[in-house]
Amino acid sequence: MKPIAYADAPEAVRAVFDDIKATRKVDDVNNFWKYLANDPRMLAHVWSSLKEMMGPGHLDPLTKELIYVAVSITNNCGYCMASHGAGARAKGASEEMMNELFAVVGLANMTNSLANAYKVPVDEAFK
Amino acid sequence: MKPIAYADAPEAVRAVFDDIKATRKVDDVNNFWKYLANDPRMLAHVWSSLKEMMGPGHLDPLTKELIYVAVSITNNCGYCMASHGAGARAKGASEEMMNELFAVVGLANMTNSLANAYKVPVDEAFK
Amino acid sequence: MKPIAYADAPEAVRAVFDDIKATRKVDDVNNFWKYLANDPRMLAHVWSSLKEMMGPGHLDPLTKELIYVAVSITNNCGYCMASHGAGARAKGASEEMMNELFAVVGLANMTNSLANAYKVPVDEAFK
Amino acid sequence: MKPIAYADAPEAVRAVFDDIKATRKVDDVNNFWKYLANDPRMLAHVWSSLKEMMGPGHLDPLTKELIYVAVSITNNCGYCMASHGAGARAKGASEEMMNELFAVVGLANMTNSLANAYKVPVDEAFK
Amino acid sequence: MKPIAYADAPEAVRAVFDDIKATRKVDDVNNFWKYLANDPRMLAHVWSSLKEMMGPGHLDPLTKELIYVAVSITNNCGYCMASHGAGARAKGASEEMMNELFAVVGLANMTNSLANAYKVPVDEAFK
Amino acid sequence: MKPIAYADAPEAVRAVFDDIKATRKVDDVNNFWKYLANDPRMLAHVWSSLKEMMGPGHLDPLTKELIYVAVSITNNCGYCMASHGAGARAKGASEEMMNELFAVVGLANMTNSLANAYKVPVDEAFK
Repeated sequence: MKPIAYADAPEAVRAVFDDIKATRKVDDVNNFWKYLANDPRMLAHVWSSLKEMMGPGHLDPLTKELIYVAVSITNNCGYCMASHGAGARAKGASEEMMNELFAVVGLANMTNSLANAYKVPVDEAFK
Repeated sequence: MKPIAYADAPEAVRAVFDDIKATRKVDDVNNFWKYLANDPRMLAHVWSSLKEMMGPGHLDPLTKELIYVAVSITNNCGYCMASHGAGARAKGASEEMMNELFAVVGLANMTNSLANAYKVPVDEAFK
Repeated sequence: MKPIAYADAPEAVRAVFDDIKATRKVDDVNNFWKYLANDPRMLAHVWSSLKEMMGPGHLDPLTKELIYVAVSITNNCGYCMASHGAGARAKGASEEMMNELFAVVGLANMTNSLANAYKVPVDEAFK
Repeated sequence: MKPIAYADAPEAVRAVFDDIKATRKVDDVNNFWKYLANDPRMLAHVWSSLKEMMGPGHLDPLTKELIYVAVSITNNCGYCMASHGAGARAKGASEEMMNELFAVVGLANMTNSLANAYKVPVDEAFK
Repeated sequence: MKPIAYADAPEAVRAVFDDIKATRKVDDVNNFWKYLANDPRMLAHVWSSLKEMMGPGHLDPLTKELIYVAVSITNNCGYCMASHGAGARAKGASEEMMNELFAVVGLANMTNSLANAYKVPVDEAFK
Repeated sequence: MKPIAYADAPEAVRAVFDDIKATRKVDDVNNFWKYLANDPRMLAHVWSSLKEMMGPGHLDPLTKELIYVAVSITNNCGYCMASHGAGARAKGASEEMMNELFAVVGLANMTNSLANAYKVPVDEAFK
C-alpha cells in the first residue's frame, strides 16, 4: 500500500494528522501514520490510544518510550526500533541509557527462554 | 529437571547462591536459580551478568524491572512475568504504574504488527 | 543457498515444479519453491501439504490466504507477507479487505499481550 | 491483579461494561474485560477499537474471528485461543472449519520459518 | 476438540496410527497424534513429513531432536518441549547434554535480540 | 549506534577483542562484537558466556552451532542466521546438513503451532 499525503487525505484523516502535529509540535507526521491512514478508522483508534497512554501519567514519557523500544526489539520490528529509539533519544535517553536498555532486553530474552527450558514453577512468594 | 537445594549443591553453586542472597538481602534464592543450578557454568554467567546490569546504572533499577516485565509479557513467559512483576513492585511500582506498563506493551505489540503489515519504510529523520 | 532453476533440477524437483505450474496455471514457480528445491524431500512434502490444504475445502481459498497473511505478519516474515498478500489479492481481496485484515491482526496482537499481562483466567463458558 | 466486578466498578467502567453487554447481547462481560477494567482508559480504548473493527465491515465477522484465532495460536495465547475460538464457533464455524484453520496456521508457521531459513528474495511479481 | 482413540478412528487415521506404532516400535501413539487425527489429512501430511525428515539422514536423529527442542523452547510450546525432550533422552541425551542445549538456546535468544537492538550489519565474510 | 574499531576502543574492549581473536584464531572480530563494544560490560559478559558454553563440552561445537541457527531462524534474526550459518559451515556442516536443519526447524514450527491450536495435554509418559 502507499502512504497517504495530507493533500490527498480525506477530512477524517486530516483531522488526525493535524492533532498529531499539534500534540507533538512537529511539521509533519511520521511514515507510520501516513500508511495507517489507508484505514482512517484504525488511524483514529491508534492515535487516540497512543495520545492518551504515551503522554504524562503514572510512568514518565521516557520510561514509556524505553518500554516501547524493548518490545520492538523483542519483536524484531525495524521500523518501531527506529521510530521509538528516536523518540527515546528526543526525550532524553543518553547512549549509555540505550546501551543499558539493550542489555536488559538481551538478558530478559535469555532468562525467559531458560525459565521455559527448565519449566521453572512460580515461587509461592510471587503468587 | 529438578531444583538443586543448597544442601545438595556443589561448592561452585553454593558460592553463587550465597552471593545472590547477600546481594539481594534475601534468605533463599528463587526457583529460577535452583533450576539453573543444574548447570553451574550458566548459573555463574547469568548471575554475574544480572548482578552487574540490573543494579544501579544509567537506568534506575525500577525502570529496568519494568523493561524486564515488558519483554516477558511479549514472550509470554509466565515465570518471568511473576518474578519480575514482584521485583518491580518491590522496587516501588504501584498498581497504576503496572497498568500503564501493560498498556504500553499492548500498544507496542499492536503497532509493531501494523508497521510490519504496511511495510512502513523508516523515515529519513530516524536514520 | 542458491535457487534451483528448472533446467538444472533433478527429476523429482521437476515433477513438483510441473505440478505447481499445472495446479496454479502459472508459467513459473515462485522463488520460495526454487529455494526449497535444495531439499527435494521437503519440497515434495510442503507442496503436497499446501496443495491439499490451501485448495477448496471447508474454508474458501481467500479466507485461507488471509489467515496465511495474518500469521506471516505476526511472525514478521517479509517474503510470506509479500507472496500471500499477492495471493489474497489475486483471489479477490480488495484494499479495504486488506486494511481490515491488518487492523484485526494489530488488535489481536494487542489483546494477546494484554491477556498475558493480566494473566486472565479462561472463563467457564469457554471451557 | 484482580478482576473488577460490575458492582465495584467506577462509572466509566460500568458504561463500557453496559455497552459490551448491549452490543453483544450477553448478560455479563468476559474475564478479559473485568481484568482490563483495572485500567479504565485502556478498557475504553480497546473496546472502542474492537467494537468498530470486529463488527460487520469489508470482511465478515466470522472471518475476522478466524483471523483472531490464527494470531492467538501463533502467539500461543491460551486465553485468546479459548475466547476467540468460542467466538468463531458462535458465529458459525464448524469443527471442520476449525481443523482447516489450524492446518493453515501450522503450514504458515512452517513456511514462514523456511522462507527465513533460505533467505528467499521477494519475487519481482510481488513487488 | 477431543482426542481420537484408535477404536473410534476412521480407516485412514488407523493406517497412520499403525504406521507410527510400527515405525517407532511403540504400543500407542502420543496425544499429539490423537488430537491431530481430528483432521485426517493433516495427520497424514505431518506424519509423512516427520517420518522421512526425522529419521536417519545427514544429521543423526539425536541432533534433530535437540534442534526440535531448541525451537520448542524458543516458541514456549510446553507440549513440544515435553515430547521432544523425552525423545532426545530416549535417543541418548544425558542431563549434561540437555543442560548444554538449554544454555545454547538461552544465549542464542540473548544475542539474537542484541543483534536486533544494535542493528548489526552482516559482515562481508558471511555474505 | 556505530561499531567500535580496535584503534578507538578502551582497554577493556581491546582485551576482549584480543581474546576473541586468539580463541578463534581470526584476524578481526565480527561486526557483532564491534557493535556490542558500545557497552563494554555486556561485551565482556556475552563473550565470557559464549567462550565457555560454545566450546567443546557435552555437545560438540557443530551441534551447538546448528542449535544456534535453529533459534535464529525461529526468531528471524538475519544477522544471527548469517553469522552462525557461516560458523556451522566452518565447523563442517555440509549443504545437505543445512537443508536438513532447515527442514527440522520448519517442521518444529509447524507442530509447535498445531500442538497449541489443539491444546494437546502432555502425555503421562512425558511427565
